[in-house]
Amino acid sequence: MTRILTVAAAQLGPIQRDENRASAVARMIELMRQAKGHGADLVVYPEAALTAFFPHWWIEDEDEIDSYFESAMPGNETAPLFAEAQRLGIGFHLGYCELAFEEGRKRRFNTAILVDKTGAIVGKYRKIHLPGHPEHRPDAPFQNLEKCYFETGNLGWPVWRTMDANLGMMICNDRRWPESYRSMGLQDVELIVLGYNTPKHNPPAPDHDRLGNFHNQLVMQAGAYQNASWVVGVAKAGLEAGVDQIGGSCIIAPTGEVVAQAVTEGDELVVARCDMDLGKSYKNSTFNFAKHREPEMYRLIVERKGAMGPEGG
Amino acid sequence: MTRILTVAAAQLGPIQRDENRASAVARMIELMRQAKGHGADLVVYPEAALTAFFPHWWIEDEDEIDSYFESAMPGNETAPLFAEAQRLGIGFHLGYCELAFEEGRKRRFNTAILVDKTGAIVGKYRKIHLPGHPEHRPDAPFQNLEKCYFETGNLGWPVWRTMDANLGMMICNDRRWPESYRSMGLQDVELIVLGYNTPKHNPPAPDHDRLGNFHNQLVMQAGAYQNASWVVGVAKAGLEAGVDQIGGSCIIAPTGEVVAQAVTEGDELVVARCDMDLGKSYKNSTFNFAKHREPEMYRLIVERKGAMGPEGG
Repeated sequence: MTRILTVAAAQLGPIQRDENRASAVARMIELMRQAKGHGADLVVYPEAALTAFFPHWWIEDEDEIDSYFESAMPGNETAPLFAEAQRLGIGFHLGYCELAFEEGRKRRFNTAILVDKTGAIVGKYRKIHLPGHPEHRPDAPFQNLEKCYFETGNLGWPVWRTMDANLGMMICNDRRWPESYRSMGLQDVELIVLGYNTPKHNPPAPDHDRLGNFHNQLVMQAGAYQNASWVVGVAKAGLEAGVDQIGGSCIIAPTGEVVAQAVTEGDELVVARCDMDLGKSYKNSTFNFAKHREPEMYRLIVERKGAMGPEGG
Repeated sequence: MTRILTVAAAQLGPIQRDENRASAVARMIELMRQAKGHGADLVVYPEAALTAFFPHWWIEDEDEIDSYFESAMPGNETAPLFAEAQRLGIGFHLGYCELAFEEGRKRRFNTAILVDKTGAIVGKYRKIHLPGHPEHRPDAPFQNLEKCYFETGNLGWPVWRTMDANLGMMICNDRRWPESYRSMGLQDVELIVLGYNTPKHNPPAPDHDRLGNFHNQLVMQAGAYQNASWVVGVAKAGLEAGVDQIGGSCIIAPTGEVVAQAVTEGDELVVARCDMDLGKSYKNSTFNFAKHREPEMYRLIVERKGAMGPEGG
């Protein structure tokens, strides 16, 4: 018996600075209803899906920074999304900026949650690979201040058993790092969901710009195949607050094949029937980790952060 | 100033069981001369390049097994390859089966070496990810007995400074595992060379067969991009001793792009001018490991060999 989970990738076009959360949530609810119409079990929204991606600009005022964060989930403005999901009986994945009070202080994380069909939050993930830089770069055409506005995620990469499958999450830049996928592959993950905000232009390395969509797919395809897991990547796309972002939301099978992809840079839904057993033949043969991995040879991966020179001589 | 290393991928067609080493070496010398004619600095040969790939069949006789191994490198039959390389002033990479006497006993490894332009062996690597199975499977159309005939490599993945670049090696199945690339990426590798013998048919998972060439490129492209290194993969291709193997030898840039690839399943040379500085913009931005890796979050990768169930609940 196959375990089909029908997944909808709900790409969002830009959210401008003056668009409020109620409007963004209304757009998400529209996509959720479309998803339900296609029999979807799970809707996947982008990273930081409720507002414009503010790490692209420098903000000094603490209150203004906090205005982009959620101190409760659901909160007043996101409650309608949970209510609609519960009414429709559909699960969802949502990325947002989280304001937490932990260890006696205010903390900020780039966070994502997994909500089941009853509207219950079953899992939370905090982004580990924060890209960009912590310092103000006033001369750049735009910035990536995630290292300024967020702390590094402190929850690891747990995998949850929900909807009759093993589900995990990552966020945006995490997808470029094989360690993210592998940490979940080692928990027998079957479906990894993630959102991203990826500018077409990379100010520190403009020669990479022509390859943004290629790299986006490449890393997710490899991560899917090498861990025999479905991967669903969902963009906030298009020209937002002066920053043009790639689309290319897609659903990738454990074979590494792209089975569905968005073709616009606006709000767009793509759907696929995902057989949660499709990765089993890989996990039982080429990628039977228990038989074929050699962890004692991987020590450098955890013992060293940055690259150092050749050790062979 | 760019550092151009001109690399030739020297794909070999099948070597049948009755073809001797002298013949195989003569074919390799022919490809080496072609490479020199194209101004190559380095020729890359396949895995276990001197004989038919014997792990595809069950052998009980110790002497017969040993007959596929080299107890000296160079030995009488491989000396002409070294001599020609020295005469031409060209480096090479060669995969072979190594019979060693270490720790007071006979040991067998699936090995590769890197030889510089003076004919000196500058690096040796022993394959770590041995695929297949240790036990006889007489009912399979063919076998993969690497876990029977070889020990797991015990030299790690060193990177060597030679030919004005940082060079590393892996072998065949290693290329499917991101840990292999990363172990060298953490030594600032600039060029990874590898050979492979990859059957088109995978008896334990025949539904994968249609994707052999796709997976071959996918994993090398991702490994190249994610470590900002050139990757050169070279096949022993075609129908050999009843087993049909993929070709698809290729040269991949640190951008993840395939810049040269073989189009036959026979002896074939493909050449590319490889700028060893091409990966620098990646290593200084997106893949600046010292800034962006989070090794304390990667512990599962070394603490666990096989996959276990979800830890999130």
